[in-house]
Amino acid sequence: MKRIVIVGGGFAGVYAAQALERRLGRREDVELLLFSRENYFVFQPMLPEVISGTIGLLDVVSPLRRLLRQTHVHVREIESIDVANHTITVAPGFKPHANVMAYDHLVLAPGTVTDFRGLPGLPEHALPFKNLADALELRSRVIRALEEADVESHDATLRRQLLTFVVAGGGFSGVEVVAELNDFVRDVARSYRRIDPKEIRVVLVHGQDRILPEVSPKLGTFAQRILRQRGIELVLQRRLVAATGESASLSDGTTIATKTLVSTIPSSPHPLIDALALPKTKNGRIVVDSALRVQGHENLWALGDCASVPAQDGAACPPTAQHATRQGALMGENIAAALDGRPLRGFDFKGLGKMGSLGRRNAVAEIFGLKISGFLAWFLWRTIYLAKLPGWGRRIKVATSWTLDLVLSPELVDLRISAGGGVMHEHFEPGQDVFAEGDLGDRVYILLSGRAEVVREPRGAAVGAPGGQVVAKVVAILGPGECFGEMALLGNAPRNATVRCLDPMTVLSIPKRDFGLLAANVPGLRKSFEEVNARRVLSSH
Amino acid sequence: MKRIVIVGGGFAGVYAAQALERRLGRREDVELLLFSRENYFVFQPMLPEVISGTIGLLDVVSPLRRLLRQTHVHVREIESIDVANHTITVAPGFKPHANVMAYDHLVLAPGTVTDFRGLPGLPEHALPFKNLADALELRSRVIRALEEADVESHDATLRRQLLTFVVAGGGFSGVEVVAELNDFVRDVARSYRRIDPKEIRVVLVHGQDRILPEVSPKLGTFAQRILRQRGIELVLQRRLVAATGESASLSDGTTIATKTLVSTIPSSPHPLIDALALPKTKNGRIVVDSALRVQGHENLWALGDCASVPAQDGAACPPTAQHATRQGALMGENIAAALDGRPLRGFDFKGLGKMGSLGRRNAVAEIFGLKISGFLAWFLWRTIYLAKLPGWGRRIKVATSWTLDLVLSPELVDLRISAGGGVMHEHFEPGQDVFAEGDLGDRVYILLSGRAEVVREPRGAAVGAPGGQVVAKVVAILGPGECFGEMALLGNAPRNATVRCLDPMTVLSIPKRDFGLLAANVPGLRKSFEEVNARRVLSSH
Repeated sequence: MKRIVIVGGGFAGVYAAQALERRLGRREDVELLLFSRENYFVFQPMLPEVISGTIGLLDVVSPLRRLLRQTHVHVREIESIDVANHTITVAPGFKPHANVMAYDHLVLAPGTVTDFRGLPGLPEHALPFKNLADALELRSRVIRALEEADVESHDATLRRQLLTFVVAGGGFSGVEVVAELNDFVRDVARSYRRIDPKEIRVVLVHGQDRILPEVSPKLGTFAQRILRQRGIELVLQRRLVAATGESASLSDGTTIATKTLVSTIPSSPHPLIDALALPKTKNGRIVVDSALRVQGHENLWALGDCASVPAQDGAACPPTAQHATRQGALMGENIAAALDGRPLRGFDFKGLGKMGSLGRRNAVAEIFGLKISGFLAWFLWRTIYLAKLPGWGRRIKVATSWTLDLVLSPELVDLRISAGGGVMHEHFEPGQDVFAEGDLGDRVYILLSGRAEVVREPRGAAVGAPGGQVVAKVVAILGPGECFGEMALLGNAPRNATVRCLDPMTVLSIPKRDFGLLAANVPGLRKSFEEVNARRVLSSH
Repeated sequence: MKRIVIVGGGFAGVYAAQALERRLGRREDVELLLFSRENYFVFQPMLPEVISGTIGLLDVVSPLRRLLRQTHVHVREIESIDVANHTITVAPGFKPHANVMAYDHLVLAPGTVTDFRGLPGLPEHALPFKNLADALELRSRVIRALEEADVESHDATLRRQLLTFVVAGGGFSGVEVVAELNDFVRDVARSYRRIDPKEIRVVLVHGQDRILPEVSPKLGTFAQRILRQRGIELVLQRRLVAATGESASLSDGTTIATKTLVSTIPSSPHPLIDALALPKTKNGRIVVDSALRVQGHENLWALGDCASVPAQDGAACPPTAQHATRQGALMGENIAAALDGRPLRGFDFKGLGKMGSLGRRNAVAEIFGLKISGFLAWFLWRTIYLAKLPGWGRRIKVATSWTLDLVLSPELVDLRISAGGGVMHEHFEPGQDVFAEGDLGDRVYILLSGRAEVVREPRGAAVGAPGGQVVAKVVAILGPGECFGEMALLGNAPRNATVRCLDPMTVLSIPKRDFGLLAANVPGLRKSFEEVNARRVLSSH
C-alpha cells in the first residue's frame, strides 16, 4: 500500500489531487490524502467580490470533499515534516493528541502566507487578504466603520479615521481589493443618512512609481487613471512600515488616520516550508527540477507558489493559478510514472497571459501578446474565470448572482465575524493615546516595549474655561513591564488619567471580561495589580 | 422637536418604525431613532434554512437602513432606561464613552432572549437559535463535527459524540431547527468517505408528551410521524437540565453523548426589560393597555414578545410575528395620535393561524380553522413567507435560491465562525475527564466549584498488558480555588495525569496562547502557578 500525502488545498494541491485521482484513484494499492487548514478550496480570483457581496459568500469557495471524491481530505494543519524519516506530524483536532504519519510520497503545496512580522503593529492592526475569513472580516470592518461614523456625528477626528480605508500593495491582488472596496463603500454609503460621500477616502499605497508591475506600463497607467476617476487616492513610492489601531505609518514618515487597513504584501514562505532544510531560492521557494521533484529526494515533490519550478527559458515560473493548475496535472502524471518506474516528464507551460479586474465593468488584460483594457477586458475576465470555476453548480450560482447584481443593491449586512477580542498585543506610535481621561475602562494593559506618559488634567479645570489653554500635568512615565489601566477596572470608574505613547510601544491588552474572570480567581494576578496600584496612588500624592 | 426612540430591530421594532415613518416621516418636528444590536433585521421564519445553506446566508436578513429610510438607525446596545427622567443610556461604540439621551416617546420592542442561567453548563456548551450568528455557528459546528469524525476513524467514543446532534425544545422553533439540521447532516454526510449514515443520530428532546403544543394533537402527531420517518429520535417527557462539552444531561438522569447541542428554550425577558420596575405578567412581559401604552406612563409604549397586549377576548396576544407586525402598525397610528392629542385605538387582531415547516417539502398549518399537513402546507408556508419577506430584491434572491436548490447539492463550507476560544467557563459532570494522561496541553484550568480527582497510570504499565486490568492511582483530590493543567504548559510536555470530575464542577479555562502571553508578563500569575506546581510535585513523592 502506497500512501501519497498532499499538503495544501489551494490551486496547486487540489489540481494535483485531481490529477492523481484520475491516474491512481482506482488502484487498490494507493491511498491519497490531502491536508488543508480549511474544508474548502478558495477560488482566489473572485475573492475580492466577497467584499461587496456581489456573489454569494459561499460561491467563491468549493468544499474540498466535493472536488475530491477519491482522496481522504483531512481538515488539519501539519505541524512538522521529517523528510529523512518520511513522516509528517499532524496537529490535533478535538482530541488533543499529536499524530505522526508515514508517507511514501509527499507533495508540498501549502502556498505562501502574508507575514507581517518585523512590521510594528501590522500583525495586530492590518488585515491580510488571502482566504475567505479575511474577506469576510474586511467586509465586516467596513460596514462597522460606516455604522459608527453614522452615529458619531460630532467627533470629527474619529469620523476621519472611520471613513478612511487604506490598502497597501499595488499588484493585481491589492488593485482588485481596492477597486472592489471603493465600489462597495461608495455604493452603500448612500444608505447612511449622516455620511457625506465626500468624507470617504479610499487610499492605495504602493512602493513603486506605478501600480500593476505585472503588466506593461501602458496598462498600468490606464489602471491608475481608472482608479483615480473612481475616487481612489494613489500614494506611490511609499511603503507601509507600521500600523496602530488608528493610523497607518508610511516609509516617508507620514501617517494616514484610518481604522481599516488591508495589506496584500509581503508574501512570505509558509512556516512549514520555512522550517525545512531543503535547497531554496533566496525568497524561500523550494528548488525542484522540471519534473517537480526536490533534488536528492526520490519521494518529495513541490509545486505552486511554494516551489521554484524551472520554465522552458530557464527562469522560474511566476506564482499564478494557471501555472499551479498545470503543475498539478503534471504532478499526477509524474507520481504515477514514479510508482511504475517509468520516466518523468518536464514542465513546459509558457503562460497564457495576465488579467486583473478594476471593478465596475472594467479590467486590464494581456493575453497571447494582446493588451486589452476596459469593458472587453472585463468581459473576458468574467467569462474566463466563470469557465474556470470548479463545478457546474457553482458556475450557475455565480452567473445568477452576477445577473441579479445588475438590478439589486449590494448587501450591507454585518455578520460580525471577528477573531479579535481576547488577550492580544497592540501597537502604538508616539503621540497616540492608549486611552483618555474620562473614558470608560474596557481593557487593562501591560507595557512590553516602548514608553508612555500618564497625563492628568488639573483638578477643577473646566473644559473651555476662560483664560485660554489648560496645561495638563504629566504624573508618571511608564516603561516596559509596567501595567496600567487597572484602576478603572478594579474600581469600575472612568479613566482618571490619559496614557499617551512617547516611544513606539507594544502593549499586552487584556479585555475587561477576561481580566475580571482571571483577577477573581488567580490570587497572584490581582495582588500584582493591586501592588502597582498602591504604589502609584502613593507616588501621585 | 419630538424624539421618538424605538428599542429593538425585530418584527415589532421594524414594523413600528415603518408605521411611524409613514405617519410622521415628513414632519420636521419629529425625529425617529431605532436602536438595534445588529445592523440587520432577521426574518425569523427562514432562519433554520441558513443551517443547510438552502438560501443565501445573507438573504434571510435585511439591512435595517434599507428598510428604514427616514429613521436614524443606531447599531448600539442600550445599557439602561430611566423611565422617570425619560432618558436612555447608550452603550459605547469604538470610543469608550457612555451616552445619555433624552426621549419624548419610548417604544420598547427588544423581544425575548434565550437565557441559560441556572442550567449548569448550558451557557458555555449549548447554542441558542435566535439570530444569524447562532445559525451560522450551528452550521459551522455541524460541519466541523463531520470533518473530525471523518478523520478520527478509530476513536469510537469520540465518533459517537461527534455524530450525535441534539436539539432541545419541541415547539415550532425547535422542530424547524431539528428538521433542517437532520436533512442537512444526512445529505452532506454522503460526501464523507468514512462516515456511515447509520452512525448519525439526530435527537429532539421535549418536556411534554407530544411536540408542537401550539397546534392540534392531530397535527402534532403527524409531525412526530414525519420526523421519525426521517430518522429523528424523539425523546419526550424529559427536559434538558445540564450540559458539558461532551454530553447533554436530561431530567430523568440519563445523558446523551454529543458535541452539538442546540436549545431553543427557555425564552426569558430581555435583560433591559427585566431591569425596569413596571407592571409585568408573571413571565416578565410588560403589561400594556390595548392601545400599547404602559399604564401610568404617557410616553412609554411596548409591543411584540416583550409586551403583554390584551387581545379582544381578554387573553394576551401570543408572541408571534403576525401579532408583532400588526402591533407595529397600530403603534405608528397611536403615537401619531398622541402627538396630535387625538384618541388612541385599541388592538383588535385575532390571528390568522399557525404554520411550521418540517423540511423537505413537508409542513403543518392551521389557517382560518383549517388543519393542513404535507406538501400543500409546505407550499403555503413557502408562498406566504416569500410574500412577507421585506423587499423585492430579497424575494427574487430567495426564490432563485429555492429553485437552484432543486438541482444543486447543499453547501458544505465551514466558515469557522466562532466566538469561543478565549478565557471561559466550562462545566463538567461526574465521571468526565477534563483531560487524559498523555494528551497535549492546550489549556490551563482553575476550579471554581465542585471536585475532581487527579489519576495517574502506574509507571511501566503497558496498555493491554497481560494479567488483566491495570488500576490507576488517585494522586490528589482538587477543590475550589485550585488550578491544574499548568505543568503541561510550563514544561510543554504531554499531560502527566488524568483529571476526572467527581462532583459537578465549573472551571475557568484559559487557552495556552492567552496563558502564555499573561504568564510571560504578569509576574504574580506565573508565581502563583509555579507555587502550586512545586507543592504538587513535592506531595506526589
